[in-house]
Amino acid sequence: MKYLFTFSLLLVFVIGYGQKEKDPTATEIWDPKPEIVTPGASMVEPPSDAIVLFDGSSLDSWTHMDGSPVKWKLEDGAMTVVKSTGDIKTRESFEDVQLHVEWCTPAEVSSKDQGRGNSGVWLQERYEVQILDSYNNQTYVNGQAGSIYKQHPPLVNACKGPGEWQSYDIIYQAPRFNEKGRLLIPARVTVLHNGVLIQNHIEIWGPVEYRGLPQYKKHGPASIRLQDHGNPVSFRNIWVRRL
Amino acid sequence: MKYLFTFSLLLVFVIGYGQKEKDPTATEIWDPKPEIVTPGASMVEPPSDAIVLFDGSSLDSWTHMDGSPVKWKLEDGAMTVVKSTGDIKTRESFEDVQLHVEWCTPAEVSSKDQGRGNSGVWLQERYEVQILDSYNNQTYVNGQAGSIYKQHPPLVNACKGPGEWQSYDIIYQAPRFNEKGRLLIPARVTVLHNGVLIQNHIEIWGPVEYRGLPQYKKHGPASIRLQDHGNPVSFRNIWVRRL
Amino acid sequence: MKYLFTFSLLLVFVIGYGQKEKDPTATEIWDPKPEIVTPGASMVEPPSDAIVLFDGSSLDSWTHMDGSPVKWKLEDGAMTVVKSTGDIKTRESFEDVQLHVEWCTPAEVSSKDQGRGNSGVWLQERYEVQILDSYNNQTYVNGQAGSIYKQHPPLVNACKGPGEWQSYDIIYQAPRFNEKGRLLIPARVTVLHNGVLIQNHIEIWGPVEYRGLPQYKKHGPASIRLQDHGNPVSFRNIWVRRL
Amino acid sequence: MKYLFTFSLLLVFVIGYGQKEKDPTATEIWDPKPEIVTPGASMVEPPSDAIVLFDGSSLDSWTHMDGSPVKWKLEDGAMTVVKSTGDIKTRESFEDVQLHVEWCTPAEVSSKDQGRGNSGVWLQERYEVQILDSYNNQTYVNGQAGSIYKQHPPLVNACKGPGEWQSYDIIYQAPRFNEKGRLLIPARVTVLHNGVLIQNHIEIWGPVEYRGLPQYKKHGPASIRLQDHGNPVSFRNIWVRRL
Repeated sequence: MKYLFTFSLLLVFVIGYGQKEKDPTATEIWDPKPEIVTPGASMVEPPSDAIVLFDGSSLDSWTHMDGSPVKWKLEDGAMTVVKSTGDIKTRESFEDVQLHVEWCTPAEVSSKDQGRGNSGVWLQERYEVQILDSYNNQTYVNGQAGSIYKQHPPLVNACKGPGEWQSYDIIYQAPRFNEKGRLLIPARVTVLHNGVLIQNHIEIWGPVEYRGLPQYKKHGPASIRLQDHGNPVSFRNIWVRRL
Repeated sequence: MKYLFTFSLLLVFVIGYGQKEKDPTATEIWDPKPEIVTPGASMVEPPSDAIVLFDGSSLDSWTHMDGSPVKWKLEDGAMTVVKSTGDIKTRESFEDVQLHVEWCTPAEVSSKDQGRGNSGVWLQERYEVQILDSYNNQTYVNGQAGSIYKQHPPLVNACKGPGEWQSYDIIYQAPRFNEKGRLLIPARVTVLHNGVLIQNHIEIWGPVEYRGLPQYKKHGPASIRLQDHGNPVSFRNIWVRRL
Repeated sequence: MKYLFTFSLLLVFVIGYGQKEKDPTATEIWDPKPEIVTPGASMVEPPSDAIVLFDGSSLDSWTHMDGSPVKWKLEDGAMTVVKSTGDIKTRESFEDVQLHVEWCTPAEVSSKDQGRGNSGVWLQERYEVQILDSYNNQTYVNGQAGSIYKQHPPLVNACKGPGEWQSYDIIYQAPRFNEKGRLLIPARVTVLHNGVLIQNHIEIWGPVEYRGLPQYKKHGPASIRLQDHGNPVSFRNIWVRRL
Repeated sequence: MKYLFTFSLLLVFVIGYGQKEKDPTATEIWDPKPEIVTPGASMVEPPSDAIVLFDGSSLDSWTHMDGSPVKWKLEDGAMTVVKSTGDIKTRESFEDVQLHVEWCTPAEVSSKDQGRGNSGVWLQERYEVQILDSYNNQTYVNGQAGSIYKQHPPLVNACKGPGEWQSYDIIYQAPRFNEKGRLLIPARVTVLHNGVLIQNHIEIWGPVEYRGLPQYKKHGPASIRLQDHGNPVSFRNIWVRRL
């Protein structure tokens, strides 16, 4: 009977406890385990799961838009736009990504407005994060550095000076379309410019459009594209992680 | 008549051109100018518009939850949890922010699971980005480093080893409530862990809840809070930008 | 001993069961209870928590933009735009709402394009859901019935013919700004046109803008506004629920 | 010379005007034209592009989960759950949809809590909008009518009484996964219950889970599923539009 009594007490405790306090293990999730990624030694170095698109040694991950070898200049660990050679794009195609790009506009300022250090990072070949020397440079704000070109101005102007290396850390969500080509979920982008938030999961209105409103057209995975806008903008340390 | 002819031609050109090509200036925005922010020399240094919450020299921006002076240890430019002194919080209150925090779990591993290097960054005192030594440490995945505690596992495990300094770069959007207290827009958070994206504008389900499901309750601006979970986790280089 | 045995078995069962299966009550939420709302007899009738803005009997909930009494025509349970009297707005101000509006364009078609049955529902006085007789009427698609005017075309054209009563069921989320006036969360809108989904939680780009791109400017609660665009468009059965 | 003067004036006007005012046609979009859809005569009748899943005459669009013919009762233009015959699902598979469903719980109330008029609409076979007789019926609020079961309570309780026909108008956005099966964009749902907004583009946490937290698992297009929870709940007038 002694045991019976003990058991009964225990039973009452177990049941009574259950009524008062929820079991914390009920809201634990144990699987699947998130993949292990070794981060870079600093925030700008590629983590272990990144695809290195440019590390200063070769232009092999890129072609011009027609598939021809890149005619931009490779020097001192950087690649630099050569005027009129045209845009370049990655050989690989991407959808949702985290992208790190470093860029530098010419140290010598010889023009102004949109003519000063103009280039751009085109996500999926269509959606442009503008590159411009926006250090003491007046232009339309949805065309300055860090703008989604002709759409969203950056939240702040975090531009460094001409000749200084700068970084974009981009988190990009690709748009989704239905079978007929109708847009169901627009593209979104977050951008840190030199570590400063300048676009916060902003909705992209459509492909970059110089005239008129942008309009989505259905597409699949596509390259990352860098623009030749006629200014010798340099690039280095480009890596991307597929999300 | 010669002039008339010239003018007419010009007029036809102007009107004809307008019909074919939209004026690109129609989609330019010139004002307001984005505020100028001087970025840090590196991505981890505070930009010019940041509020520095801890630079290694003083604990003055923090108190314990009851408003008393912080009893955590200040040494070698870092502050370290002193067991059972309790959580600390910023004197200032915040809503939407970009937040940079560096943290380090003990070099000597003396426990396991949730007992190993456990602390946390609590946004608006309620929404926890978990800190844990998740380097070869098995626990529930929505409780490992970088999880939204008891809600969302991180996308990947980007944890460095015990005794190494690590960083969180957090972009936080506060929840919005109506006058009656009903949630209208949930909180959202993006987290880079050592530069690697681990939470992407994820919807926070509610305040951290150890037992049962989280539930939002209306609140206003609130502090950033760091957790004393009994382990001597260290912090350094904490800054925040109001969005 | 028989009871002891029974109790022991039960205990083993309870504990063993608990280890295999999580307690389902751990994910139940019991409070607060959602408010009870009595729905209308049909989907177009106001539920019990709706504010009736127009039931056919009076124009008292409305004024012109300058606060003067409404000079539109009240007849046969409908109110009809009187050309050049100007837009009207609700006396009450709103933020996030569910809104039901019924409207009817003139049975006799005497014009075309934007001149045919043009009016509009302006949310918070600024964000326009276009009203137009878009039944066999060519115009720019981001200006047809159900468009967010000069922004988003409707997903489909669900317009009834001239002289027929039509409905908009609108779910509107107001934009959020920070103290400095910077947009933090854009406005969003879902629209059912005659029961057909034509806008799905779409992001509004800013206040309606006839020329150039829209740009948000900070504002607080504001009226619902109906447009006098010179055409005798009629309205009936207007109600709104605060969210 | 008179004409010359006139032309010159006109020219000056055109150019001068252009500098002050942006051309409104620059923000017009003319193509593609939204598809024309003929709405139902009332909001509950299927529009011309809807797939009618049940019009009271046949169960042919449905099977049980194993593909066998539906053993539910077809009578008086409604189909009614027959206890223990099991859930049913549409033959067709769906992704993003607008869905109209009418349902009716038994007029005679013979049970309580989750035992009273329990059924459910399962989107893509996994994400449940709960059906329950929640008229003066106490249960956990994230299990009452219109809840996303075991996740989100409805914003309000818009339930009609037992034996009355009720409607759900559902706007559903399917989740998106990457190739590895990781969730990239969660599912979302908007629900009108008897015309009253009860879920507003809410984020679904994962597939319905009776015990513990929900967790997404990658899937493709899937059926709409109706639940046999042992109560003779009836359905009528079910139609769906692919978005």
